[in-house]
Amino acid sequence: MEHRLARQWLATAVEEARAGRAQGGIPIGAALYGADGTLLGRGHNLRVQEDDPSLHAETAAFRAAGRQRSYRDTTMVTTLSPCWYCSGLVRQFGIARVVVGEDETFRGGHEWLAAHGVEIVVLDDPECVAMMREFIAAEPALWNEDIGQ
Amino acid sequence: MEHRLARQWLATAVEEARAGRAQGGIPIGAALYGADGTLLGRGHNLRVQEDDPSLHAETAAFRAAGRQRSYRDTTMVTTLSPCWYCSGLVRQFGIARVVVGEDETFRGGHEWLAAHGVEIVVLDDPECVAMMREFIAAEPALWNEDIGQ
Repeated sequence: MEHRLARQWLATAVEEARAGRAQGGIPIGAALYGADGTLLGRGHNLRVQEDDPSLHAETAAFRAAGRQRSYRDTTMVTTLSPCWYCSGLVRQFGIARVVVGEDETFRGGHEWLAAHGVEIVVLDDPECVAMMREFIAAEPALWNEDIGQ
Repeated sequence: MEHRLARQWLATAVEEARAGRAQGGIPIGAALYGADGTLLGRGHNLRVQEDDPSLHAETAAFRAAGRQRSYRDTTMVTTLSPCWYCSGLVRQFGIARVVVGEDETFRGGHEWLAAHGVEIVVLDDPECVAMMREFIAAEPALWNEDIGQ
């Protein structure tokens, strides 16, 4: 896909990540887009805010999109490389494409997804990197909890 | 682990699956047990009941267990072989063991988990198979929706 469009969609995920951090949470955001560019769902990590370990950014966006008959041609946009939990979500539901804000501070399963036919776009976005670096330095225990380390 | 203990724990997941079916939902149940046999959380698929595609049985049990500092030595018990979404959950959070009620009607990622060091116990439970066969025959579209087919 065009990087210009990917960056536009990433902005939604970044807004979500910033909102999460402003709430005292983990600054990871995501959004699920349909083939025609419709925003189907958006969300951010809610471990802290709802004491819910199951709501990573990607699962929150997936949930917000509600029940869908098919995920064919949808794109999951996330500020950070998806962990195995969120990579598994993408593979199981046949989400076609993942736009990754950055994979420097954490690298999950996006190469595994690429090997299984998912289109992966990594944007190396400096703001996404900066948000995660600030957060990991400020809250290392919380970050480790979120990725099961 | 001893199959007698695994069967005892599976009974909790089967209760959940039955409860889900009685509510008009998808009959898959799960439970997360601690190393000492403490039941940390239990749940069932809630796609129909809460219109929530993110709550598979395993994620519902994981969520019910709340925030945990570590999943070391925990066991996820599920009536059905975990899909990629739920297998990813197990891998990311370092859940040590998965007890699978059956893998005849659906086979997800449990062999991938075994290859990554997770202990897998498949019980070939006839009641679990019967529940899924009945459900898939009665509600094929709903089942396909739940696994993204």
